[in-house]
Amino acid sequence: MISVLLVGNGNVASHLRNAFLQSDDVVVTQINSRKLELVPKADVTIIAVSDDAIGEVSSKINNSFVVHTSGGCEIDVLQNNTRKGVFYMLQTFSKDKKINFSEVPFCLEAPNQKDLELLEKLAKSIGTKIFKIDSEQRKALHVAAVFVNNFTNHLYKVGNDICVEHKIPFEILQPLIQETAHKIKTLSPEKAQTGPAIRNDATTIKNHLDLLNKNQEKIYKILTKSIQNGH
Amino acid sequence: MISVLLVGNGNVASHLRNAFLQSDDVVVTQINSRKLELVPKADVTIIAVSDDAIGEVSSKINNSFVVHTSGGCEIDVLQNNTRKGVFYMLQTFSKDKKINFSEVPFCLEAPNQKDLELLEKLAKSIGTKIFKIDSEQRKALHVAAVFVNNFTNHLYKVGNDICVEHKIPFEILQPLIQETAHKIKTLSPEKAQTGPAIRNDATTIKNHLDLLNKNQEKIYKILTKSIQNGH
Repeated sequence: MISVLLVGNGNVASHLRNAFLQSDDVVVTQINSRKLELVPKADVTIIAVSDDAIGEVSSKINNSFVVHTSGGCEIDVLQNNTRKGVFYMLQTFSKDKKINFSEVPFCLEAPNQKDLELLEKLAKSIGTKIFKIDSEQRKALHVAAVFVNNFTNHLYKVGNDICVEHKIPFEILQPLIQETAHKIKTLSPEKAQTGPAIRNDATTIKNHLDLLNKNQEKIYKILTKSIQNGH
Repeated sequence: MISVLLVGNGNVASHLRNAFLQSDDVVVTQINSRKLELVPKADVTIIAVSDDAIGEVSSKINNSFVVHTSGGCEIDVLQNNTRKGVFYMLQTFSKDKKINFSEVPFCLEAPNQKDLELLEKLAKSIGTKIFKIDSEQRKALHVAAVFVNNFTNHLYKVGNDICVEHKIPFEILQPLIQETAHKIKTLSPEKAQTGPAIRNDATTIKNHLDLLNKNQEKIYKILTKSIQNGH
């Protein structure tokens, strides 16, 4: 049995608590990060608060092993004087949406091998996809996630804007969007690339540019160039 | 019963033939676009050849109603002297992958109302999502598709490159990619936007830029700026 203390009451903490409650191998307690006068002991203390608050919250905790859940922070933002680790789940957590933890990648870090094994055991109690990722890798992963999530979503927005401007229902693009994401489950993004840029179809590219506003044009040109240069 | 003549033997023509063969309302014939000496008559002649070839192929056909299947071409690239139309399906057609036509958006155009109704009837014989889209709208749709498909796939590639460079398995990003696409089935891209750009998180953005190569940096900056400017 692993005892877990969750510090925080945002989306990550709430979803984790619900998942741990289902596990026979974990006993879980949750506390508000603003009430750290009486901190219960636990094998693993998981700080699930905003990036900016991790340092201060961790400095007030004396439990033996303290981890944070942030993709954007190094392990050393933790200010506890005891053992440290990271328990990062690479997924978007929305308040009302149930998380299927068996699909969530757990990215674990701990300098101490025994601690790493403990985090692995904890992750396995609710999930299946478990990876050892150090702070340097996690930083890179975080950037990569910005490209495939935040920036991709912005391209959806540009597509939507073009549709709205021309009175086209955005739903026409939905199957293509789903298929584009689906495709790279089995094909590398490099092999999945299609379109006028990779075909070097200058006529189509010119026609497209004529239709765009200044900002869309900039994005179109830089991504076309990047595709054509094989980046 | 609608008689259809398919001209061409690429992916689009083959998938369409297989779908029409399943329908009780359509009788379908298919011919190679390089053998136009004896063209069978049909209610609808569908030219499914590369954009560049549509003009020449259509000029050799005397059937009463001729349509092309291209998202990138206006209706007037057709050079037949009879009635014209467009039967455009917005989806990526791969050779070996079965197409679920009930999910495919059919974008139809014909100047003549009766012809449009005929195309609708034809589309309904194999599909469910049917839209009236004129040449101007189709051009815009084609550009929008480049953003949500070709450019999005390139962002996946950048994410993959970052992973490879830091020895991170790309599969860690897969659930996030699928979730990003899935999310906008129910949420507008504008509302679905998350990340350091929309949060104006300058520290994280700076940390990210430090990790990127010149080309990735350019893409990161232009998309961050576009998100922050509310484009």
